[in-house]
Amino acid sequence: MTNARKPFHLNAFLMGVGHHEAAWRHPRTQERRVLDVKHFQELGQIAERGKLDSVFFADGLAVGPRIKRNALAVFEPVTLLAAIAAATEHIGLIATASTSYNEPFNLARKFASLDHISGGRAGWNIVTSGTEDEAFNFGYDAIPEHARRYERADEFVDLAVQLWDSWESDAVVLDPETGVFADPDKVHTLDYQGERFRVRGPLNSPRSPQGRPLLVQAGSSESGKEFAAKYAEAVFTAQRTLEEGQQFYQDLEERLPKYGRSADELKVLPGLVPFIADTEEQARALEQEFTDLISPDYALRQLSSLLGVDLTEHALDAPLPPLPPVSAIEGGKSRFTLVKELAEKEELTVRQLIGKLGGGRGHRTFAGTPEQIADELQSWYEAGAADGFNIMPPYLPGGLEDFVDRVVPILQQRGLFRTDYTATTLRGHYGLDPVESQFTPVRIQASA
Amino acid sequence: MTNARKPFHLNAFLMGVGHHEAAWRHPRTQERRVLDVKHFQELGQIAERGKLDSVFFADGLAVGPRIKRNALAVFEPVTLLAAIAAATEHIGLIATASTSYNEPFNLARKFASLDHISGGRAGWNIVTSGTEDEAFNFGYDAIPEHARRYERADEFVDLAVQLWDSWESDAVVLDPETGVFADPDKVHTLDYQGERFRVRGPLNSPRSPQGRPLLVQAGSSESGKEFAAKYAEAVFTAQRTLEEGQQFYQDLEERLPKYGRSADELKVLPGLVPFIADTEEQARALEQEFTDLISPDYALRQLSSLLGVDLTEHALDAPLPPLPPVSAIEGGKSRFTLVKELAEKEELTVRQLIGKLGGGRGHRTFAGTPEQIADELQSWYEAGAADGFNIMPPYLPGGLEDFVDRVVPILQQRGLFRTDYTATTLRGHYGLDPVESQFTPVRIQASA
Repeated sequence: MTNARKPFHLNAFLMGVGHHEAAWRHPRTQERRVLDVKHFQELGQIAERGKLDSVFFADGLAVGPRIKRNALAVFEPVTLLAAIAAATEHIGLIATASTSYNEPFNLARKFASLDHISGGRAGWNIVTSGTEDEAFNFGYDAIPEHARRYERADEFVDLAVQLWDSWESDAVVLDPETGVFADPDKVHTLDYQGERFRVRGPLNSPRSPQGRPLLVQAGSSESGKEFAAKYAEAVFTAQRTLEEGQQFYQDLEERLPKYGRSADELKVLPGLVPFIADTEEQARALEQEFTDLISPDYALRQLSSLLGVDLTEHALDAPLPPLPPVSAIEGGKSRFTLVKELAEKEELTVRQLIGKLGGGRGHRTFAGTPEQIADELQSWYEAGAADGFNIMPPYLPGGLEDFVDRVVPILQQRGLFRTDYTATTLRGHYGLDPVESQFTPVRIQASA
Repeated sequence: MTNARKPFHLNAFLMGVGHHEAAWRHPRTQERRVLDVKHFQELGQIAERGKLDSVFFADGLAVGPRIKRNALAVFEPVTLLAAIAAATEHIGLIATASTSYNEPFNLARKFASLDHISGGRAGWNIVTSGTEDEAFNFGYDAIPEHARRYERADEFVDLAVQLWDSWESDAVVLDPETGVFADPDKVHTLDYQGERFRVRGPLNSPRSPQGRPLLVQAGSSESGKEFAAKYAEAVFTAQRTLEEGQQFYQDLEERLPKYGRSADELKVLPGLVPFIADTEEQARALEQEFTDLISPDYALRQLSSLLGVDLTEHALDAPLPPLPPVSAIEGGKSRFTLVKELAEKEELTVRQLIGKLGGGRGHRTFAGTPEQIADELQSWYEAGAADGFNIMPPYLPGGLEDFVDRVVPILQQRGLFRTDYTATTLRGHYGLDPVESQFTPVRIQASA
């Protein structure tokens, strides 16, 4: 396995008081600090204690059917990460932001600012926002078409990268004698004229420590994978079996050469929801406690939204009704496919499906001892299905603490995971080289 | 004077290493930490040491003619304030954001997030973005017309307030027994249908500690004053003489009843750039040192942008060329008028005008001893020209430290200014009542 020689990475995907649908109802989250910034700063510190590469906050631009269930989105992730940056030193800081409902100039600025504030720890999970609820908050009558969203995302990222590149890294001179603040020859007007965006530039921010945020992507549709191969440096993905993981990994890898990229430039991190206990039996019992706390009516609403079919009146112990083909779905195509296949392959009733999805909305759940979890991660990694993992604690902070304090040391003992940070930036943690501005002329060679 | 009985307020308007055009070249700013978040966190802490009401960061969405001169806008202000929030406990946190180049949903969310992160200390300085350079970064060929920008701002703020109000303050229930996270009857869909915006809502954030950010405004054109009277809770303004200050104050106050508002609901804070030294002579000499460091060519570019006339080839020791009437200006009308009147009234050459503007771009500069500065502030306050001041240190951190450590104690000894915080929120510091959601039914009275 060539893969076994690549470094191993760990991202903590954080959400409210945990990923499990019913996390906030379980005694392990007694405090339920969903509105408390200190809760999130402490999570950043716990992840840093475990030497993890990064923490990640997803986001959506609507409340949708979750009003009664969970406060996914109390904090706008970039402002939240700025506050976490101030309470940590090393941990990478990844935020979701939408290409469909932002202005490229504002978004590029915001991430440049987070990168400055954190000393080079910013990452952007690029999403195209596939729900109707979001579309309604931005003047649309329906979700913009899947293909159109990806076309916009493509132009958006191309432009954002140019904005980040508009200041060369040594443009700021700060020479009090000559009065030169910045060298105008190293600050570039873009006059960008795309199909959707016209932006003169430059960005109103000198080049940030990383040059630009780490680019992350998480959609696994055909357009999503192509987009990832073109732009992404890390991919978060939901893969339920080792075989599917290997297939996805290889699929992505094979798309890279078309864009002049190599496997080293893209890290694949499947999601894992770990239930950790001293024995396997206790871990399974813990998972069951959470499953038992799921409120079926909220879960039905969420499943309806995910599948684009109204299930709110559907019998819980019946199988799913016939679902539309994926080609008819304009929202998240890959998640739709994953859930549809899961329900059909395992012949699940709606109640069983809800239980399976409760932990991580389609991500793999694994209940076991710390050793068993480490084994599982190692086997995927060594079998070429992952460069690391997107750890999704079902409850917080306990679920993250257990992973950091009980699983990470085993990975470290096995020589799989770092025992201390060796880099200061998020790109550095992920083993990626610094990025130079595309507008930097090859000055040294030219004079050689 | 009724005014003398109102509490006295102080905001620190912070910019890079100081407001003075040439601040970064002066030995007092030897470190020039314009790219260092710790510099700004320390400024927040200094302001908090002085028990100031708030700190404020202006913003512009373009580099424009400032590339060589100053890094006004390294940090996006809301992310910067989130990082400052994490390093402070009481100080209010005010950021400029544009109604012309943001989506209402995103902007409302961002400020709600800052208000949550800071425990109720967020403020929004509402601007309509009056420069061509900004328009070019958002797909426009010219500045959108002044009147159109204010129409958009009006609808934007109306909608933003509804978004903040879409969650009643007690909507989050968090009852693990019943499984009710939030009470859907207290979370309101808006179905907002304006001329420019259609937004379904609700906001994807529970009501923040202040309900909404403090609303601040800083344009003094006719439209600007009307907008302030309708929405603003604090106004930053450039007034060069006591008489002009009194006139502006009275003008604003007289506009309030039309909107059902009283003078207590709006605080007027004229800007002041203080040069502080042990003697008046030393303070004047200090100011002169800064004036001498202004680079005329950069200043000419900035003046050209401000006046909408190309002055880059104009003789420094000649008077200004004839200027267009204010009706022809689509950018910042009030600043244009202020500079035009200053140049004409005092018959200034371009070089003299640049010197006068160097400290605060049209704001009043005052050089004196701590006592003299306290006298000046007190006299404006008692004469009904101000509810407090927008202090614009010409260099940082020294200029802020001198104000906090030398002027504030005098104001405190005179019983003018608080000696400790008595409130926990920015609205509280400014003596404003909490805001209830407009969608909260009068439940208690109804049952009485």
